[in-house]
Amino acid sequence: MRKNVLIIGAGGVAHVVAHKCAMYNDVLGDICIASRTRQKCDAIIESVLRKNHLRDSSKKLYSREVNALDISSLIHLIKDTESEIVINVGQAYVNMSVLEACIETGAVYMDTAIHEEPDKVCENPPWYANYEWKRKERCREKGITAILGIGFDPGVVNAWCALAQKDYFDTIDTIDILDVNAGSHGKYFATNFDPEINFREFRKVWTWINRKWVLQKVHSVRMDYDFPVVGRLPVYLNGHDELHSLSKNIDANSIRFWMGFGDHYLNVFSVLTNIGLTSEKPVKLDDGREVVPLKVLKALLPDPSSLAPGYTGKTCIGNFIRGTKGHEQREIFIYNICDHAECYREVESQAISYTAGVPPVAAAILAARGDWDVKHMVNVEELDPTPFIELLNTMGLPTEIIETPAPFTPPVIESLESV
Amino acid sequence: MRKNVLIIGAGGVAHVVAHKCAMYNDVLGDICIASRTRQKCDAIIESVLRKNHLRDSSKKLYSREVNALDISSLIHLIKDTESEIVINVGQAYVNMSVLEACIETGAVYMDTAIHEEPDKVCENPPWYANYEWKRKERCREKGITAILGIGFDPGVVNAWCALAQKDYFDTIDTIDILDVNAGSHGKYFATNFDPEINFREFRKVWTWINRKWVLQKVHSVRMDYDFPVVGRLPVYLNGHDELHSLSKNIDANSIRFWMGFGDHYLNVFSVLTNIGLTSEKPVKLDDGREVVPLKVLKALLPDPSSLAPGYTGKTCIGNFIRGTKGHEQREIFIYNICDHAECYREVESQAISYTAGVPPVAAAILAARGDWDVKHMVNVEELDPTPFIELLNTMGLPTEIIETPAPFTPPVIESLESV
Repeated sequence: MRKNVLIIGAGGVAHVVAHKCAMYNDVLGDICIASRTRQKCDAIIESVLRKNHLRDSSKKLYSREVNALDISSLIHLIKDTESEIVINVGQAYVNMSVLEACIETGAVYMDTAIHEEPDKVCENPPWYANYEWKRKERCREKGITAILGIGFDPGVVNAWCALAQKDYFDTIDTIDILDVNAGSHGKYFATNFDPEINFREFRKVWTWINRKWVLQKVHSVRMDYDFPVVGRLPVYLNGHDELHSLSKNIDANSIRFWMGFGDHYLNVFSVLTNIGLTSEKPVKLDDGREVVPLKVLKALLPDPSSLAPGYTGKTCIGNFIRGTKGHEQREIFIYNICDHAECYREVESQAISYTAGVPPVAAAILAARGDWDVKHMVNVEELDPTPFIELLNTMGLPTEIIETPAPFTPPVIESLESV
Repeated sequence: MRKNVLIIGAGGVAHVVAHKCAMYNDVLGDICIASRTRQKCDAIIESVLRKNHLRDSSKKLYSREVNALDISSLIHLIKDTESEIVINVGQAYVNMSVLEACIETGAVYMDTAIHEEPDKVCENPPWYANYEWKRKERCREKGITAILGIGFDPGVVNAWCALAQKDYFDTIDTIDILDVNAGSHGKYFATNFDPEINFREFRKVWTWINRKWVLQKVHSVRMDYDFPVVGRLPVYLNGHDELHSLSKNIDANSIRFWMGFGDHYLNVFSVLTNIGLTSEKPVKLDDGREVVPLKVLKALLPDPSSLAPGYTGKTCIGNFIRGTKGHEQREIFIYNICDHAECYREVESQAISYTAGVPPVAAAILAARGDWDVKHMVNVEELDPTPFIELLNTMGLPTEIIETPAPFTPPVIESLESV
């Protein structure tokens, strides 16, 4: 049994992680939320207490200030809080320092997004090999459990791939991961999570096609799909974290990721990008100061957590998987529907944060119990998906499966480059 | 006779002013270009010499560094350079300090845009009354010639109003000033002069209608007009400097300003404005620094002077004037056509800078000769337009007049507010 959870970060996803950890603190023990800005941690704690979500009130819920790039401070914090599980939901820039602190202290490590270096965007595949996987050997030697990318996508969608391989298919031809937000926040324009990380996703589209990496232009390949519940919506081929591990761990010919965008979003994004406002490269102002345009844009856009109160509609994230079982062709759509307003009623959050924040808590419970305390570094598809999916069914993120889904037949995708 | 010209500023308009002053330095004498960044002045001088435009090589053409907000430095500079004419084509923020230095030294003062305070945008009409006209009395007492707004618009269009009143009409009902750029710079998006000043124009639309100031929303009133040479193009009701003096000095019922915009420009402008990027109000970045979004946008957009080499097409700026002569109704369109590529061939500039930069040099010649050395502060429509228009005809900006132009009949304009 592992106990006591340290949450790194105090954004929208950390907010959900804290709520759910509190609701399962009889298993998880004490909970500490730590970030650069302690005030943001305390605002989350207030929300948890307001919702009366601290199940076992003999367990602690408290905050600490930490610079998550400073490994020795992190080591001190993990030891001092006696945390045996660290859920890292800080900015993706801190992954390597938090992982290092876990390796040094023996704590379980989890994150929800691939490591990023501030000056590098959309690195060449497989991206995990540049950072996380370089620590695989050390994790194994020291018996460290490190679970990479355990949000929704990456995370739950990876577990669905493992489930498909285990229970539904003998051979898999294609996996198409489809992520649409059919919700409305009522603002002119906003991102649903940190705009800085969000926009960095939309530079290059790396896709795994016929067992090769191919490169396309952003927003250049569109498909309309008839989703369950939320209806027919356009999705665009996009690069995404999970492709960088699924391509290695799942035996499929092609694995693609598609994200839903409306015309207004694409227009605004296109203008901002063409002007240079989504760039991480500093520009020099008249007064000689250098600023990163993307950080200015972030300062102007609504804080993602501010969207939650008025958010309506639902998200649908699902895997369309095509392959064979026995001698039969088989297609399934395995998915989740999440309602923004219901999330707000439950944990004062919107569905994008909710879908990303609940899975690491389920994983923490499995690690605490021992089911997923595997003593080495894994991506989610390398773990047994069944207890995870069953647990999520009871935690607000039910998995649904359609055996004969609406067809998904994307156009032939031409490669600009392959590696 | 006045002699020796000091040019304040080293942007696109200053570039044209320097070229044209050099071409008439037999009348104007020595020419000094001064700005915060001496390097930019020297680049202009190189261009003048490259084009072999220094007519009288016994006269000097040289640069100085100056902070145009520092009155005592300006006084020193005017005295030291023995300049009797100052052409202020710096940022509109420096008008009052440069004017003050001229009042103190007795030099002729000219500018091409209304004074602006950095923290105030689209001030209430008549805007000139807040700054320039407060110095009218002192100019008269000290015999200072100050010519306000002597670019193209304001500037030449004001002279056309004076010409219409003098030679073409007994009564004037409406004056519609139409400014379209039918050129193409080949960039995704760019402004043709300082984006900071440019975007500040598009906040409020103050218009003089039936002898009252009325307020409309930006880009809310559109008209298509069949222009000579450049053809049928959309123009939008816009606020502009010249309305703030013409409303006082020209006896007309309504005076309106219209600017041409394409759909792409309006879309980009709308996105940038809705996001907050055209705002002069500082925002706080994650690192605690405060930056003005508009200054970041300026740093990202192409430098207006960089557009010149590849610019094609023409501008058309004209006054559509309706009134009576004798017992007859009369309508005229008085206009100029300027070709971007021709401007580049002549002075290595584009037509927007050219149309703004040639008129102050014509005015300087008239001041040097004595024709316009009026010893008090005036807006352009208060001066005799005939020698000015005749001189411009020989300097690259010919005036054309159509006696029966295509009709211009805008929709009834509803006021949001009036003063």
